[in-house]
Amino acid sequence: MRAIKDSVHDYIEVAGVAEALLDAPAVQRLRHIKQLSTIRLVYPSANHTRFEHSLGVYHLADRALDHLGVTGARADTVRAAALLHDVGHGPYGHQTEGIIQRHLGRHHDEVGHLVADGEIGAVLRDHGLDPDRVAATVRGDGKLGQLVAGELDVDRMDYLVRDAHHTGVPYGTIDYGRLLRALAFRGDDLVLAEGNVPTAESLLVGRALMNATVYRHHVARIAGAMLDRAGERLLDTAAVDPETFARMTDAELLGALREHDATADAARRVTERDLYKRAVWAERGDVPDDIVAADYDATRGFERKIADTAGVPERDVVVDNPGQPSMPESSVRVEVNGDARTLSEQSPLVQGLQESQRVQWRFGVYAPDEHVPEVAAAAERVLGLEGVGDTSE
Amino acid sequence: MRAIKDSVHDYIEVAGVAEALLDAPAVQRLRHIKQLSTIRLVYPSANHTRFEHSLGVYHLADRALDHLGVTGARADTVRAAALLHDVGHGPYGHQTEGIIQRHLGRHHDEVGHLVADGEIGAVLRDHGLDPDRVAATVRGDGKLGQLVAGELDVDRMDYLVRDAHHTGVPYGTIDYGRLLRALAFRGDDLVLAEGNVPTAESLLVGRALMNATVYRHHVARIAGAMLDRAGERLLDTAAVDPETFARMTDAELLGALREHDATADAARRVTERDLYKRAVWAERGDVPDDIVAADYDATRGFERKIADTAGVPERDVVVDNPGQPSMPESSVRVEVNGDARTLSEQSPLVQGLQESQRVQWRFGVYAPDEHVPEVAAAAERVLGLEGVGDTSE
Amino acid sequence: MRAIKDSVHDYIEVAGVAEALLDAPAVQRLRHIKQLSTIRLVYPSANHTRFEHSLGVYHLADRALDHLGVTGARADTVRAAALLHDVGHGPYGHQTEGIIQRHLGRHHDEVGHLVADGEIGAVLRDHGLDPDRVAATVRGDGKLGQLVAGELDVDRMDYLVRDAHHTGVPYGTIDYGRLLRALAFRGDDLVLAEGNVPTAESLLVGRALMNATVYRHHVARIAGAMLDRAGERLLDTAAVDPETFARMTDAELLGALREHDATADAARRVTERDLYKRAVWAERGDVPDDIVAADYDATRGFERKIADTAGVPERDVVVDNPGQPSMPESSVRVEVNGDARTLSEQSPLVQGLQESQRVQWRFGVYAPDEHVPEVAAAAERVLGLEGVGDTSE
Amino acid sequence: MRAIKDSVHDYIEVAGVAEALLDAPAVQRLRHIKQLSTIRLVYPSANHTRFEHSLGVYHLADRALDHLGVTGARADTVRAAALLHDVGHGPYGHQTEGIIQRHLGRHHDEVGHLVADGEIGAVLRDHGLDPDRVAATVRGDGKLGQLVAGELDVDRMDYLVRDAHHTGVPYGTIDYGRLLRALAFRGDDLVLAEGNVPTAESLLVGRALMNATVYRHHVARIAGAMLDRAGERLLDTAAVDPETFARMTDAELLGALREHDATADAARRVTERDLYKRAVWAERGDVPDDIVAADYDATRGFERKIADTAGVPERDVVVDNPGQPSMPESSVRVEVNGDARTLSEQSPLVQGLQESQRVQWRFGVYAPDEHVPEVAAAAERVLGLEGVGDTSE
Repeated sequence: MRAIKDSVHDYIEVAGVAEALLDAPAVQRLRHIKQLSTIRLVYPSANHTRFEHSLGVYHLADRALDHLGVTGARADTVRAAALLHDVGHGPYGHQTEGIIQRHLGRHHDEVGHLVADGEIGAVLRDHGLDPDRVAATVRGDGKLGQLVAGELDVDRMDYLVRDAHHTGVPYGTIDYGRLLRALAFRGDDLVLAEGNVPTAESLLVGRALMNATVYRHHVARIAGAMLDRAGERLLDTAAVDPETFARMTDAELLGALREHDATADAARRVTERDLYKRAVWAERGDVPDDIVAADYDATRGFERKIADTAGVPERDVVVDNPGQPSMPESSVRVEVNGDARTLSEQSPLVQGLQESQRVQWRFGVYAPDEHVPEVAAAAERVLGLEGVGDTSE
Repeated sequence: MRAIKDSVHDYIEVAGVAEALLDAPAVQRLRHIKQLSTIRLVYPSANHTRFEHSLGVYHLADRALDHLGVTGARADTVRAAALLHDVGHGPYGHQTEGIIQRHLGRHHDEVGHLVADGEIGAVLRDHGLDPDRVAATVRGDGKLGQLVAGELDVDRMDYLVRDAHHTGVPYGTIDYGRLLRALAFRGDDLVLAEGNVPTAESLLVGRALMNATVYRHHVARIAGAMLDRAGERLLDTAAVDPETFARMTDAELLGALREHDATADAARRVTERDLYKRAVWAERGDVPDDIVAADYDATRGFERKIADTAGVPERDVVVDNPGQPSMPESSVRVEVNGDARTLSEQSPLVQGLQESQRVQWRFGVYAPDEHVPEVAAAAERVLGLEGVGDTSE
Repeated sequence: MRAIKDSVHDYIEVAGVAEALLDAPAVQRLRHIKQLSTIRLVYPSANHTRFEHSLGVYHLADRALDHLGVTGARADTVRAAALLHDVGHGPYGHQTEGIIQRHLGRHHDEVGHLVADGEIGAVLRDHGLDPDRVAATVRGDGKLGQLVAGELDVDRMDYLVRDAHHTGVPYGTIDYGRLLRALAFRGDDLVLAEGNVPTAESLLVGRALMNATVYRHHVARIAGAMLDRAGERLLDTAAVDPETFARMTDAELLGALREHDATADAARRVTERDLYKRAVWAERGDVPDDIVAADYDATRGFERKIADTAGVPERDVVVDNPGQPSMPESSVRVEVNGDARTLSEQSPLVQGLQESQRVQWRFGVYAPDEHVPEVAAAAERVLGLEGVGDTSE
Repeated sequence: MRAIKDSVHDYIEVAGVAEALLDAPAVQRLRHIKQLSTIRLVYPSANHTRFEHSLGVYHLADRALDHLGVTGARADTVRAAALLHDVGHGPYGHQTEGIIQRHLGRHHDEVGHLVADGEIGAVLRDHGLDPDRVAATVRGDGKLGQLVAGELDVDRMDYLVRDAHHTGVPYGTIDYGRLLRALAFRGDDLVLAEGNVPTAESLLVGRALMNATVYRHHVARIAGAMLDRAGERLLDTAAVDPETFARMTDAELLGALREHDATADAARRVTERDLYKRAVWAERGDVPDDIVAADYDATRGFERKIADTAGVPERDVVVDNPGQPSMPESSVRVEVNGDARTLSEQSPLVQGLQESQRVQWRFGVYAPDEHVPEVAAAAERVLGLEGVGDTSE
């Protein structure tokens, strides 16, 4: 048994299959993937990694299992899944999700290939666990999968408090001790026990406020969009194949970008925080529906057209079209007077939060500082926006 | 200059008029009034006092004045008002507000008589300040009064973080550093500067979640209602006059209650946490409008009728009729695109929170453990409730 | 099972005998005894009580027992002892220890009479526990008694971190998670496992720094000495018998002092923080050995003689003669290369700390502000001190 | 003015020359140098960087200047020096100090070349500051240089609390608020004001306990020594010149090591935490004086001889010969009765701490897991050690 000191949960005791998994290179690699990717450009203390987060998720899973009275191989499967839930992330985490999805057709929570083969597969089998069931649990399948990936999963409990600790923004500091104690199964459904409507609300509210101030900060979005475009160019050069790309660390990606003409400028800009600026920053009501509905290829088409119109190189225009906001926690089930109700039924707050997200939604077009005026003008023309140019930082 | 170590704000530097005011008995008395009165019966660590809270409010006022560039006697008036803003509280703070209002016709923020006379008045005048202006600032009058008592006042900034620190419930941990930096005057109105809609929302949300889990906890409400009734009986005995009552400390009130037959049992019950239990715990929709609209005297009349019906002594029934929920922060003004808008206009969250408060609203009838069944039955009959008896704790 | 939210340890789960003991009046009384008595006059946030501390000690005992693999009635005895370890404290805790010792001949950890009788005895016996063994464990007797009262007990682990949390002074924030994990039995001795010399040192160092800045602050000592003298006068009036005195709460003592002519002034001074000031504040080397060796009665004799010489009333002079400093943790046993060595053998730091305490030692004579000069002069003459008068605060 | 959110000091306001310096690539580079280099292999949360630390040092310098009443260009010089004090660090900070010293003959605090040229020099001159004076201040020269590099500098105040926050080890959590308030000049000497012997002791004690548990942890030392040897081999290959080496980031160094045969294994081992193990771990008394006195070249000679004797490749042996422990804070000056005395004169604790460091001193020889036995035997023979082999982790 190892006791690992963590800045959030104090000592985390790692034993059995989890202890054996720790040394696998695919787990150690998570030390080199930052939890909040480009957000450190806004919140400089936010350098924590997916490695310590994974330890935290393992720890909370362990506490939840203990509370729920789950033991044996079923519990070990959950523990392993908790520790491994992020091994499918590419470099810079969510920032390269789109690239990996488009080129390899898989989401970061599809880890079957990673946990079946090599050292991880061997460790799991040695401890009598089925790698396929571990992978399914990472995806959230099965009754216990809800603990790892679901509306009430320990993943978000850990990341909210950890991101709060490291950014200094307090909103994520939820009462996870109470959440863990309130977890219960009603049939196959994971619910919060009676009296926990405010507990559930606090989870949504914590995430909504972290979204507004941290996760969706425009500077982090700009850097993220720049990395996405540069990543695509890197794969286009054929210098790197998608599988290799997907297994890089943050620094390896930055290193690879630095070595190719088509991407070196992006690498330098992210490294030195010399980022593109906002040429357009539009509210939902100001963006035509067909623009919002555009897919990735169509969005890239807008970039080409705007660049052409503005008379700047294509890579000087980045169009950042956020998806429609979702709020998965709104389907959290809470016991009220003996019934398991979804939170959105029970809490008027949920609808308020959903509308709040819509109010905060922004569509961005970014360009190098010196090209902001012409890109703004071109974008307004091309996209049919009106008077939404914004060059203030 | 004194630097006083505080568990929330680290060192608080107290100088000038504030330092001189510290030694006044009416300020030292605040050491003996707990900030959260009966809530310590639910959250045993919550023993902090209005003295340290007052220091905290002074400290935040000082930072706000510095940020806003206010200096001289106007600033000193605000500093003095911040330090003195709670000297009007009776024993057990909000729990005796009703008694003092009914018997003396004044609210805790009416402190003119306390700051004009005696040591405080002398200190203020010695430092060239006008006691009347200080008292007006405590009431929230004037442009700068908004800092001390208003939707964006430093009072709530301090109490939210302090109550979170001492209860262990994290929801109150707002980002007051950001709030202070966002304060601005637009004409005579105190507003939050551009980009601070989530900052304002976080203030409402923090208070709403603290309301639900801490401030309105039913055990604290029961103890509070018992103290109110016992306090009235104490004044009825004519053993204590209202002015003396209003200036007691928590312990002095408990001591006085202990000494009289009509109140000794209440004192013992609060001291030993042997409280009445819920006989009725009804949602808003289950309580007839005329019952909710009843004033204090009418409510006391219900108690007598219920006791009579149940065949128990009058003091064995406490009817707790909370006021209609209010949410003053919803009129916070925030700058959006150059206009100062009220938060309720701008944030769909506000409406959600207001409705959420309505959902959480509860009407209670309390009785000694052994009389809960008959009191519940009698209350349902007398008040026209239906099937709302609740004896679970 | 109850889960009680604590500001230091988050949720504390209380079950079985401990849950049943919570409601006993002698346990609830601890809500009304402040953990740091008069230290709140220096650190205004330090209003925490022996009730929450007792919950914390119970919680850490529970974790230690779990770690050490102790179960059954032996473990329950320790849990009960942990929760009850402070029920023997008088009002204002350590400040009235001397009075209770002199009048009743017992120390606060002698709780046999309190746990055998009444509600506590009944609860213990109901749960199959022997009150005498619980009382013995409170005293530190037996192998497991070391966990509750010994060099490595959970009492000091809790109070150090709790006092740090509430004063804001960080020095007490020890790594109790590591201490708990390092606990081991070697034969009947509780020791720290290999590799924990710095862990043990941190415990001593934390306490030494808290002594210097918090526990032995001169303002708290002055108020404490004033309470001791007033307490003696209260018993002299025969208005209160020693047993009643010993079971008072802080507020009850203050209330009783307020009601008698001989003690009313002391009560007012402590309430309003209008304390005596230092007339003498002497280092160890400046105080003759026979003065330091004087017992309580002899010290009171000095007070009379000084008052007489100074021409002031006897109660205007308080001589505060601290005992020789002790450092019980220096006999903590730590495993080094397989041997259990005492820390003082192994760590050169221990000797440094012991000498440091000697350097910080101070002998005080206190008097009302207006009598400081004549009392200082008289004390120097009567006690044979030279040039040690100190009137700075 | 920018307000940057920091997880340790909350908002840090950066204005004037400091704000302008932030964007310089040499400052942004510090985002890519971890504050605790290899210690994250032991404490996985410790991923904070020299960038946020530099902001913290700037912030504390600003507070100290304010407290000391220093203004104008002298203050700006200190602010700039505080922000720039770490720009001279090579990749992995202290771990490559030896390499840079040996190849370039300069210490990390010699930053004259870095602050005079390029963007930084231009910014400083634009703001009317002399780069040479800034560089001198970084070295600790001059009266105000003591604030940046001296026994009482704000550098260590920041790193102790920051490292505590990020490792989770509480010992570094000093009361820097009190330290800052106690700073005073006596003539040209920076001292702590009267009454601050424990404050000064807490600084030493904090660092001593962090040394024992964090900074000198053997796993971090092993990885550090491996990086030093690999760095030397990288320079030997002539693929990288020393100036380029010195300006790399952590990731760039790891990338460069990965690309060369002589260093790829070391890069992989550090990345995957597959480190050498202890073959020898000897106390001071067991290591002959001439071995301890050996310089770097002689130590490398031991490695060759041990490898030769053990029959393993040279790079499989690392001899880690720590310097004699120093304790610079022991010369901190504290006012006692009006004199400025050095702490080591005044505090018996200092000597205890110095001896404690000697007790904790360890000499290590490290080797790949599979070669530990033969390397241990060879090392004992070559170095004249006796029975000190240690293969436990």
